[in-house]
Amino acid sequence: MFGFRVEARSGRARAGKLLTPHGEIPTPVFMPVGTAGAVKAVTRRDLVELDAKIVLANTYHLMLRPGEDIVAALGGLHGFTGWPGAFLTDSGGYQVFSLEGLRELTEEGVVFQSHLDGSRHQLTPERSMQIQQRLGADIAMAFDECPAYPSTREAVDAATARTTRWARRCKDAHARAEQWLFGIVQGGVHSDLRQRSASELLALDFPGYAIGGLSVGEPKPDMRRVLEQLDAQLPEDKPRYLMGVGTPEDILEGIARGVDMFDCVLPTRNARNGQLFVQGGRLSIRNARYKSDPLPPDPACGCRTCLTTSRAYLRHLHLSGEMGAATLLTIHNLSHYLDTLRAARQAILSGRFEEFRGEKSRDLLGPAVS
Amino acid sequence: MFGFRVEARSGRARAGKLLTPHGEIPTPVFMPVGTAGAVKAVTRRDLVELDAKIVLANTYHLMLRPGEDIVAALGGLHGFTGWPGAFLTDSGGYQVFSLEGLRELTEEGVVFQSHLDGSRHQLTPERSMQIQQRLGADIAMAFDECPAYPSTREAVDAATARTTRWARRCKDAHARAEQWLFGIVQGGVHSDLRQRSASELLALDFPGYAIGGLSVGEPKPDMRRVLEQLDAQLPEDKPRYLMGVGTPEDILEGIARGVDMFDCVLPTRNARNGQLFVQGGRLSIRNARYKSDPLPPDPACGCRTCLTTSRAYLRHLHLSGEMGAATLLTIHNLSHYLDTLRAARQAILSGRFEEFRGEKSRDLLGPAVS
Repeated sequence: MFGFRVEARSGRARAGKLLTPHGEIPTPVFMPVGTAGAVKAVTRRDLVELDAKIVLANTYHLMLRPGEDIVAALGGLHGFTGWPGAFLTDSGGYQVFSLEGLRELTEEGVVFQSHLDGSRHQLTPERSMQIQQRLGADIAMAFDECPAYPSTREAVDAATARTTRWARRCKDAHARAEQWLFGIVQGGVHSDLRQRSASELLALDFPGYAIGGLSVGEPKPDMRRVLEQLDAQLPEDKPRYLMGVGTPEDILEGIARGVDMFDCVLPTRNARNGQLFVQGGRLSIRNARYKSDPLPPDPACGCRTCLTTSRAYLRHLHLSGEMGAATLLTIHNLSHYLDTLRAARQAILSGRFEEFRGEKSRDLLGPAVS
Repeated sequence: MFGFRVEARSGRARAGKLLTPHGEIPTPVFMPVGTAGAVKAVTRRDLVELDAKIVLANTYHLMLRPGEDIVAALGGLHGFTGWPGAFLTDSGGYQVFSLEGLRELTEEGVVFQSHLDGSRHQLTPERSMQIQQRLGADIAMAFDECPAYPSTREAVDAATARTTRWARRCKDAHARAEQWLFGIVQGGVHSDLRQRSASELLALDFPGYAIGGLSVGEPKPDMRRVLEQLDAQLPEDKPRYLMGVGTPEDILEGIARGVDMFDCVLPTRNARNGQLFVQGGRLSIRNARYKSDPLPPDPACGCRTCLTTSRAYLRHLHLSGEMGAATLLTIHNLSHYLDTLRAARQAILSGRFEEFRGEKSRDLLGPAVS
């Protein structure tokens, strides 16, 4: 039911297949973020048509609303949402740690107040496993401690050590056969802590490994260095997931360093703000230069939005606060991300990933979008 | 290019066909409201799939944003929005008269302040015609004065007389061959004023007649009485349009009194508020009874939402503020309205409209939605 195999390499970039109970996922893959069990501003059919293979849902949001009991009663995330593809759930940890001032951290876990109604809740490794098993995603994530950036070395060291202890408790508490549990490597920008974290998690033998604690504000060279270090240390035959990354350029940097899976709110959030990812750069649909522009957002794109809608109309809908703008712009941005990852995979399969990445970088340095 | 014929009658109800440059429209017909050139929360494809034939757009909103120049530059409403079906534009008058305190009314027209930025604008019969011709809808509406309800008889009398004078100016100013211009009968709840308004407008020989100034707060028996009076007075061979009406029940009352066309924000606005029109009544998706309900909103409905989505999931999306909830609920509500009108048409064609209306009324008195 589960499996992963690397089919081709181009430099350090890998093209593979991830097998799940809800389909085969070609990698490298981008996972749209569906926080509350829905990718914002689009419906399931849009995601099917975009050929998205796997959606990320947030444990923190779903445990608070509607609650895992309701999701489980409706048949888990798949039954509840009707999404036929795969799901991955995060552990809830990252969201809880972001609730600055509303939380108390102990070895046992985290007590926090809901951002919705102030009610008190606890997340522990065991509780995160319990919730994620009831949500029933194809892939669950270990409950980790992700330190803020910047933090002192001592703080990162302690969080990394705790992440290992919690990973062990997650593994002990996890019993759902139809679900893979991934470990999360922490360690900030410190090579020795990353090394220790990875080696401790490898000893626990997870079927896949995520790289946490990057893209949290550190300089890009640090991110690249950590990715290169982990590429050498993580097993070749298991999937690697770079959490919360990122721009199309960051994703290509990750692929070049052996990463297989990515997620980020950028394409969906930016769409709602009128920011489009297009061939050669970015485009703000609010710009007055587009007010009578009959071109589609990206003339090189084949998505439903670009095939049917002008910049002028999209600008009008966006400035008028019409929800349809968010829908159409989200469809385009997700299409751009998914197409970029599919093209990267093809480039790897044909052994020319570095050439492909070079072309993409030159695109970004090219003339501004007309 | 334009035409209208009545194909069948059942009592006073009529089934017909309205021919426009953008397709043949079976009547009676419901026109979804697309204020800013888009029906809120859905995209064009949804409307095509719902088999909506004609959409109403608001002159007031479009003249202010994006402005008729931009719409005209993109090829009119059809080119601008890409909607392949027909469009009807209102005259802007109703919206302007609703701007209590921000407007000055003279015989020439209305000076008003934009609700967007406070800028001053003028609408006159000639200016409304100019804008509507540039927007390029299939059907334009005369610029009328719609008095508030209640108003004194003198005020209604004066507004009705002015509506006739303005209708003449509209007719003189209108020159677009690919566009029909409808007159609007006013007169409030006063039979003699309605009679005079209709007869003055009939003398101007419009290709279709709208009934304005109803569903503005008057008692239902008054609305029914005015409709019956105008049904007897308006020509049988021209389409009749009851503006801004209404609930499914009100629409059936209108059809029973010879009306062919309807528009209303209810199905779309209520959807965004979580209120659904279903077989047998209404359903508030916010209700806690639906929190684990695996049924679709309306088990008798064949719309995309009902075929694919549970009440539990819709409730969750709505309470979470997800735009997808508005999209899915709007699709259902529009489907319910359009299906109701299609079923009414079938009932008329088979000579059993009163029976059909009786069944629908009993439905509404039936047990609460489970």
